[in-house]
Amino acid sequence: MSIMEDTLPTEGPGPKILLGEPVQRGYSYLYEGFVIYEEGGEQALMVFENPFWGRVLFINGTAQFTSRDEFIYHEALVHIPAQALPEGRLRRVLICGGGDYGAAREVLKYPEVEEVIIADIDPRVPEVVRRYFPQLLPENPEDPRLKLFTVDAFKLVKEMVERGETFDLIIIDSTDPDVSVTEHTLELSHSLFGEEFHSLLKRLAPEGLIVQQAATPFTMKNILGSSYRVFRKVYGPETYCYRANIPSFGGDNAFVLRSPLDPTVRRRKGLPETRYYTPELQAASFVLPRFWLTEVLHD
Amino acid sequence: MSIMEDTLPTEGPGPKILLGEPVQRGYSYLYEGFVIYEEGGEQALMVFENPFWGRVLFINGTAQFTSRDEFIYHEALVHIPAQALPEGRLRRVLICGGGDYGAAREVLKYPEVEEVIIADIDPRVPEVVRRYFPQLLPENPEDPRLKLFTVDAFKLVKEMVERGETFDLIIIDSTDPDVSVTEHTLELSHSLFGEEFHSLLKRLAPEGLIVQQAATPFTMKNILGSSYRVFRKVYGPETYCYRANIPSFGGDNAFVLRSPLDPTVRRRKGLPETRYYTPELQAASFVLPRFWLTEVLHD
Repeated sequence: MSIMEDTLPTEGPGPKILLGEPVQRGYSYLYEGFVIYEEGGEQALMVFENPFWGRVLFINGTAQFTSRDEFIYHEALVHIPAQALPEGRLRRVLICGGGDYGAAREVLKYPEVEEVIIADIDPRVPEVVRRYFPQLLPENPEDPRLKLFTVDAFKLVKEMVERGETFDLIIIDSTDPDVSVTEHTLELSHSLFGEEFHSLLKRLAPEGLIVQQAATPFTMKNILGSSYRVFRKVYGPETYCYRANIPSFGGDNAFVLRSPLDPTVRRRKGLPETRYYTPELQAASFVLPRFWLTEVLHD
Repeated sequence: MSIMEDTLPTEGPGPKILLGEPVQRGYSYLYEGFVIYEEGGEQALMVFENPFWGRVLFINGTAQFTSRDEFIYHEALVHIPAQALPEGRLRRVLICGGGDYGAAREVLKYPEVEEVIIADIDPRVPEVVRRYFPQLLPENPEDPRLKLFTVDAFKLVKEMVERGETFDLIIIDSTDPDVSVTEHTLELSHSLFGEEFHSLLKRLAPEGLIVQQAATPFTMKNILGSSYRVFRKVYGPETYCYRANIPSFGGDNAFVLRSPLDPTVRRRKGLPETRYYTPELQAASFVLPRFWLTEVLHD
């Protein structure tokens, strides 16, 4: 990872405001605090400071993570798949999105990892994190195993397939698709949820694990349901779903996983230091409420 | 259960408003909708109608349940303990609080249950539910096995101990204590969380299960922590903690359980119709995030 120049505009905090984040029809989260960074563009970014959550990164008006509970999201995203792999099987990791470094931070805790590639389309996300969320950086921010590319992950994946590259673990750590649909554009992450993308990933990880964050189904049912259907179509019976509760997200967040091995079994002996993950959570995370099974995940 | 007269004032819905529910410092839930019932008194009650959550019962400004996700709370509260008991062991059930009928509705799904006693201090809660939340009523609203007493549960429990009564399952389904502390009063539920109350319950259920809802620790750490310490003191190693995610509560809700049998094992063969509970959730519900163990539940 090269030392990046910080090209963000320098601003002081604005006045104290009340910021509403629409969650559902007639239901919002209301945060009191300060906008400490804000910039438009293809993705509108904002860093907000709140007395309870700490700092919150908003993308297109939707909270992506808070400094108070991001550890739950990133540990669930990484350690559930990583711990299902036997020792020595986690060498090359691709993170699609994930420019906030949080997933990479967790992956790099495994000494056997040789290379982690982050492919994020927005160069400002890593810059914002380096300035405002240093806790998300890897223990060694200059870890030579980490490569950050500012690129559309879809495009990079296509090139990697042509070059015959392979990965042990692919993590799709993106914004929710279809949530902030403006008049003319889909959310940038839209293509990372489709069948074409996953058909490419299957070639990139013929024996590997592929995990996708799939939002909170209680408030956004369609994302988990459609993501699960794509996985079933592309990966067949190697498709699994697990969950973790990230309090700032409201309901349980869903993760869809392709795994050739039964991922409810922990195969690794070592475990890095964690604050959310325990070995007992490996199996328990895959146990879903009945209504997820009957009302969301049915084919 | 006697047919209750509906003594509530009759009101039409008021104007559409934005209602904020403070959750933490600088963090609130914001609901758009209509107040369709509101009354002060020792406990301030309000029924609010919202396009996403449906109807929401507020007590002292805090949402108690919504018609959209109350099924998760009530099924987790009842079926986790009930399914740990072998067939034939669930005859007499006491519900402290629970005037909303939701817990009783779930308990009465077991045909072997002979008697369910609800002890709620506020006579308006059952009335409000009968008028505005009929879904919370038992399948047979006039089920002769159900007895509703308007009484301070602490007082009733004392009398029952003196009479030598015993129960198979005691459910403490109350408001969170200490949350709405006004200048002169504690929350009415305060006494139901203390050592004295639980010492009485132990005599009332010498072989039985005792479950207490203990709020959402991520935003209200002290309730689970102090409730768990009281259980450990009174019930020793028969103390357990499990969780369920009720999306309108934000983070996972905690339940503290006293069980002489290992409650992670499901002993019952039959299972009533459920929308949240599955047999696989019996063990999984007791698997807690590491930070609950290290930062909340330590003695």
